[in-house]
Amino acid sequence: MQESSFKYPDTDAFNYVITELLHRNIFPKDIAAIVYDLQHEYVPEFTVDDFEKEVLDVLHKRELLNSAMVAINLDNLAQQNLLSEPLLRIVKADAGVFGVDETLATGIAQLYGSIGVTNYGYVDKTKPGIIGELDTTPDTVNTFIDDLIGAIVAAVAGKVAHKTA
Amino acid sequence: MQESSFKYPDTDAFNYVITELLHRNIFPKDIAAIVYDLQHEYVPEFTVDDFEKEVLDVLHKRELLNSAMVAINLDNLAQQNLLSEPLLRIVKADAGVFGVDETLATGIAQLYGSIGVTNYGYVDKTKPGIIGELDTTPDTVNTFIDDLIGAIVAAVAGKVAHKTA
Amino acid sequence: MQESSFKYPDTDAFNYVITELLHRNIFPKDIAAIVYDLQHEYVPEFTVDDFEKEVLDVLHKRELLNSAMVAINLDNLAQQNLLSEPLLRIVKADAGVFGVDETLATGIAQLYGSIGVTNYGYVDKTKPGIIGELDTTPDTVNTFIDDLIGAIVAAVAGKVAHKTA
Amino acid sequence: MQESSFKYPDTDAFNYVITELLHRNIFPKDIAAIVYDLQHEYVPEFTVDDFEKEVLDVLHKRELLNSAMVAINLDNLAQQNLLSEPLLRIVKADAGVFGVDETLATGIAQLYGSIGVTNYGYVDKTKPGIIGELDTTPDTVNTFIDDLIGAIVAAVAGKVAHKTA
Repeated sequence: MQESSFKYPDTDAFNYVITELLHRNIFPKDIAAIVYDLQHEYVPEFTVDDFEKEVLDVLHKRELLNSAMVAINLDNLAQQNLLSEPLLRIVKADAGVFGVDETLATGIAQLYGSIGVTNYGYVDKTKPGIIGELDTTPDTVNTFIDDLIGAIVAAVAGKVAHKTA
Repeated sequence: MQESSFKYPDTDAFNYVITELLHRNIFPKDIAAIVYDLQHEYVPEFTVDDFEKEVLDVLHKRELLNSAMVAINLDNLAQQNLLSEPLLRIVKADAGVFGVDETLATGIAQLYGSIGVTNYGYVDKTKPGIIGELDTTPDTVNTFIDDLIGAIVAAVAGKVAHKTA
Repeated sequence: MQESSFKYPDTDAFNYVITELLHRNIFPKDIAAIVYDLQHEYVPEFTVDDFEKEVLDVLHKRELLNSAMVAINLDNLAQQNLLSEPLLRIVKADAGVFGVDETLATGIAQLYGSIGVTNYGYVDKTKPGIIGELDTTPDTVNTFIDDLIGAIVAAVAGKVAHKTA
Repeated sequence: MQESSFKYPDTDAFNYVITELLHRNIFPKDIAAIVYDLQHEYVPEFTVDDFEKEVLDVLHKRELLNSAMVAINLDNLAQQNLLSEPLLRIVKADAGVFGVDETLATGIAQLYGSIGVTNYGYVDKTKPGIIGELDTTPDTVNTFIDDLIGAIVAAVAGKVAHKTA
């Protein structure tokens, strides 16, 4: 239902997401470094600092913030065993046939067009930088968060490609 | 990460979803009745019973079950105030600019092609039958579940259209 | 292949699309009128003129222009019998199980998030205003163009919803 | 418009697509070989021959055939200079910001769930086997066809992952 009276809490949403990422030692610069490696050949004039500004910019987009909050909540709730079975064990196993993590991430990437989608698919398979570290951290549920980082990378790649072409 | 050793719990997932729907007085026949109203003009040979069989069939599809389990968990956790702020109040308000409910539902609908997607969009706006009842139930969080039902309707519409053309 | 040396012809693309729409007697104001009918209850402060400005704005977005040029070319080529069989007769029949027209349109709508996607699905089924007229024009192939108009409507609806919430 | 009276030409569509691929020296086994390299670690029991059977199976799916026919027609029409400007030069340049080729391919991949989408994104960036050869063939427009092959690879990867998990 579209509630026209609801005032979206933009600042609270941004603060929640950035704080949760920092708690996991994920900094915007880490995300920017992945985009740099992916896109440097196409936009040689962009530095890691430039990409970091773009990371912060896409992190203010509401559709991205919404999916990010859901992703972070689901990982935290799985960590606390607050999801119902059998979802709990599927999320904890980060099962290859689960796919809701990728669905949320693709939804974000699609906001930035097809360059977003293909870059997301690529980083989901190659898991560069901080994404790969998250994917292999023991005893911590990062099923949704690694895909979220991949989606942010893809969003920035898509955004910058259109800006510069 | 694709874990080739993980055995997906198909039966547990189906049982969880169907039981949670029954707890909300949502029966496969109610979903079938919406599909019948939508698609009867295109497939006059299909009865509500035929569509009910198709509803049960799509409810065995893993990608649908995964999104359904996430949708149901999120509504239940919001009901119990177990989501973090500001996500909790956004989900409780069923804010029009939230959109993660529609992203999950579109992900399901897309498994059944473009007929799935357009039918989902249509029922999301018109809220026929049980979907409209869920959307207006007071004191109960049905933010994700109404879109889930819409996605199941769309899935069956898309599946049957290809079967019969 | 990403060709960083290619300079995208933004102006030519916009001029091509707007001219082809005018040749079919489709004016930005007609598209704005459909958005007004759909979204007036949520954004009562927006006039048809305001929506017309937004229509012109989304018509400058590259991903939209690219899909629009493909859609228009395919309808024109079908009209001139320049598509190969059996694609030619499928496009001419505007077959319900074709779906590529809806895939292109959904790709556009997704750039504007889930509000875009659901609004596209809705107008694809209800065919308001100029969309319904295109869909029933005899002896003219409008298989892709009616979905393109639906996608533009959806894009503006999604864009304005986020702007105002 | 959904035309319930239209009989979809399944056989003609399959024959058209397979013949056009053969004309470009693309054989189902070449596509199967790419899937084998991508998925062998997850499904060691599948041989290239097994994947070839799956390639032929997905090539009978209508939504895939529809997008495939559009993709092939667009490349052929570009080759014959029958697309309008500026679309013609954008397609011939295979411009990175075009994206309609990827939109069609993603539409196919999404029929096979999120594993389909991520695998498509990956092969779109890495261009293994026949895909890379197509992407660099001089004097031949393969803008849409290389993405089509990537989408078929992704479809089979997604299909087999669910079959075996």
